[in-house]
Amino acid sequence: MTNDTHYMQIALRLARRGLGRSWPNPAVGCVIVQNAGGAPRILGRGWTQPGGRPHAETVALSQARERYGAAELTGATAYVSLEPCNHVGETPPCSEALIEAGIGRVVVGCADPDPRVSGTGIERLRAAGIDVTENMLQADAAELNAGFIQRVKSGRPLVTLKTAMTADGRIATRSGASQWITGSAARERVHLMRTQHDAILVGIDTVIHDDPQLTCRLPGLGDRSPVRIVFDSNLRISMAARLVKSAREVPTWIVTRDDRDEESASNLQQAGVEVVRVAADEADHVDAGLALAELGNRGITRVMVEGGAILNGALLRAGLVDRIACFRAPSLIGGDGKPAFGDLGVEKIEDMPAFAPMAREIIGDETLDIYRRLP
Amino acid sequence: MTNDTHYMQIALRLARRGLGRSWPNPAVGCVIVQNAGGAPRILGRGWTQPGGRPHAETVALSQARERYGAAELTGATAYVSLEPCNHVGETPPCSEALIEAGIGRVVVGCADPDPRVSGTGIERLRAAGIDVTENMLQADAAELNAGFIQRVKSGRPLVTLKTAMTADGRIATRSGASQWITGSAARERVHLMRTQHDAILVGIDTVIHDDPQLTCRLPGLGDRSPVRIVFDSNLRISMAARLVKSAREVPTWIVTRDDRDEESASNLQQAGVEVVRVAADEADHVDAGLALAELGNRGITRVMVEGGAILNGALLRAGLVDRIACFRAPSLIGGDGKPAFGDLGVEKIEDMPAFAPMAREIIGDETLDIYRRLP
Repeated sequence: MTNDTHYMQIALRLARRGLGRSWPNPAVGCVIVQNAGGAPRILGRGWTQPGGRPHAETVALSQARERYGAAELTGATAYVSLEPCNHVGETPPCSEALIEAGIGRVVVGCADPDPRVSGTGIERLRAAGIDVTENMLQADAAELNAGFIQRVKSGRPLVTLKTAMTADGRIATRSGASQWITGSAARERVHLMRTQHDAILVGIDTVIHDDPQLTCRLPGLGDRSPVRIVFDSNLRISMAARLVKSAREVPTWIVTRDDRDEESASNLQQAGVEVVRVAADEADHVDAGLALAELGNRGITRVMVEGGAILNGALLRAGLVDRIACFRAPSLIGGDGKPAFGDLGVEKIEDMPAFAPMAREIIGDETLDIYRRLP
Repeated sequence: MTNDTHYMQIALRLARRGLGRSWPNPAVGCVIVQNAGGAPRILGRGWTQPGGRPHAETVALSQARERYGAAELTGATAYVSLEPCNHVGETPPCSEALIEAGIGRVVVGCADPDPRVSGTGIERLRAAGIDVTENMLQADAAELNAGFIQRVKSGRPLVTLKTAMTADGRIATRSGASQWITGSAARERVHLMRTQHDAILVGIDTVIHDDPQLTCRLPGLGDRSPVRIVFDSNLRISMAARLVKSAREVPTWIVTRDDRDEESASNLQQAGVEVVRVAADEADHVDAGLALAELGNRGITRVMVEGGAILNGALLRAGLVDRIACFRAPSLIGGDGKPAFGDLGVEKIEDMPAFAPMAREIIGDETLDIYRRLP
């Protein structure tokens, strides 16, 4: 491994800390290394802070100045997982900050597809005489910000469908029992995944059936719960639902049809729920594509779907699922149990939605397979 | 790794070569090592030959005598994956052959549960002054002969259920299309698995629907096809079925109810098919437990089931499945596809048939998980 890949891996690990908290901004990591005079020395490290500000570069530069003084930054190398921003927003752009700090070289993970940046950050650095190396661990960097990139390119967030099933693909017995098909270690893994997503999405049937909290309840990570979103076409959610009752503590959005009556919506709003309205589809349900576009509009970049077979099926049929995270227990329920996904209408083998394996973990006797959709 | 585990691993690898061909005998491996005078030297290697004779020890001793002369065997160590036999059958027992050869030490993988051996082989060696080490890599040795051990203990063969499914546990689309859910590499892996089983078992519906050959068609392994067995309660199989037409080349057994008429049975017999008759169960089908016992009676130790959902479900409900070999493709069919197993009648999560992972292979984008039934 070269030094460049080593430090970029550190930058990517730092970036990952911001996943689920940096939206609508990307989760970026930055590490600043001084190579002059002896062994390389890390001067500063940073990652995008909650809400997206300050940026990773700003944090790393501040830390370096504080610890080693501004002069040490001269000629140093900055490893940044995503192209530095170049547009003036609430703060001056990071490209400028790196130039002003006297950085000599910048190594970039992947380009920022945001049309306000998209290569201009790198151009500006080069114009200032900084040596720029692009696409270092590009695939890893792009995967880390797949949600941000997806939102910039298509307007909707990255959708990860999570499911916990038996070895034969069942999520409940024929009588509906499902707690618990997977064990406590897998369920803790799900809570950790929640912290790395901007939002958790379920359908109203899951709320009615399970009355879930959808929070992260891992010790020490209670403040990392994502936005909780319910697709509820006909506003059937109960004011007594745990999601509604805790809406002031954890952001809770109900997505409903734009022709639903105002009264129940306003009750929900008074309880602290945000009501999001989108047009219905032909089946009179919230149109999933429009709903996801509206979530993207509101800055959500990564959604984890923890719904039932109906929502899962609808999203898959519409081609809106980018990743599947599939927990599997080594037990069986059989053909009379409930399947993970609703009807997909596949007739011919060549018409199957095709995915490819991305990652795999062994969790005791269970497994977690993560698949990505093939284009 | 000690020398003992090293040589026992070699013995186990040799033993594996006999799987699927040694029945009704166990598949045993033997390696003979001379430690005296310098570095250890392998004098002979052997494994149970097709049909079960000669035994591994006989083959290894002959090879050693042929290559190095009988005198070299004095004081040598024999590594044997299963306790040497001690009963006089067609040939003198292996215990006697090892004693006569002047072997000084015998290292045994696991005891032979056959009541005609069961410890007496080891006793006899010790009585002759031979140093015996037992239970070397015992779990691996027992797993390798799990079929033989199961047949000795329960009378029926080890049953491995093989299935190829999508990530959501479907084996066919709603219209029945199933070729091919998994790719050619996985299918070749299945053919290799066929060679390591004594018999392949399917239900009559699979024969009617797919007209399969159930042979091993890997280059160079065409002579390793196992016995082909069909559960066909009402003798519905067609004389034109490929299984029937090739029954003179590859052994083919049809298991039917003991009250089926003689005429169609005798037509099948004239085509070279062996008709096996067992009593019906309450549903008027061949009783799966009795049928497996009869296969055990006839010497079968390892059966791979390549049936459909109905046969799979019946065997699972009856608690007759010892292993599941589950090939998974990263594609989806959805809830309207056909499930791998029939109805199991599971209501409560704690009633699920429980398995544990035994082995896992990555085959390109697909996986093979092997589960074993928990007691």
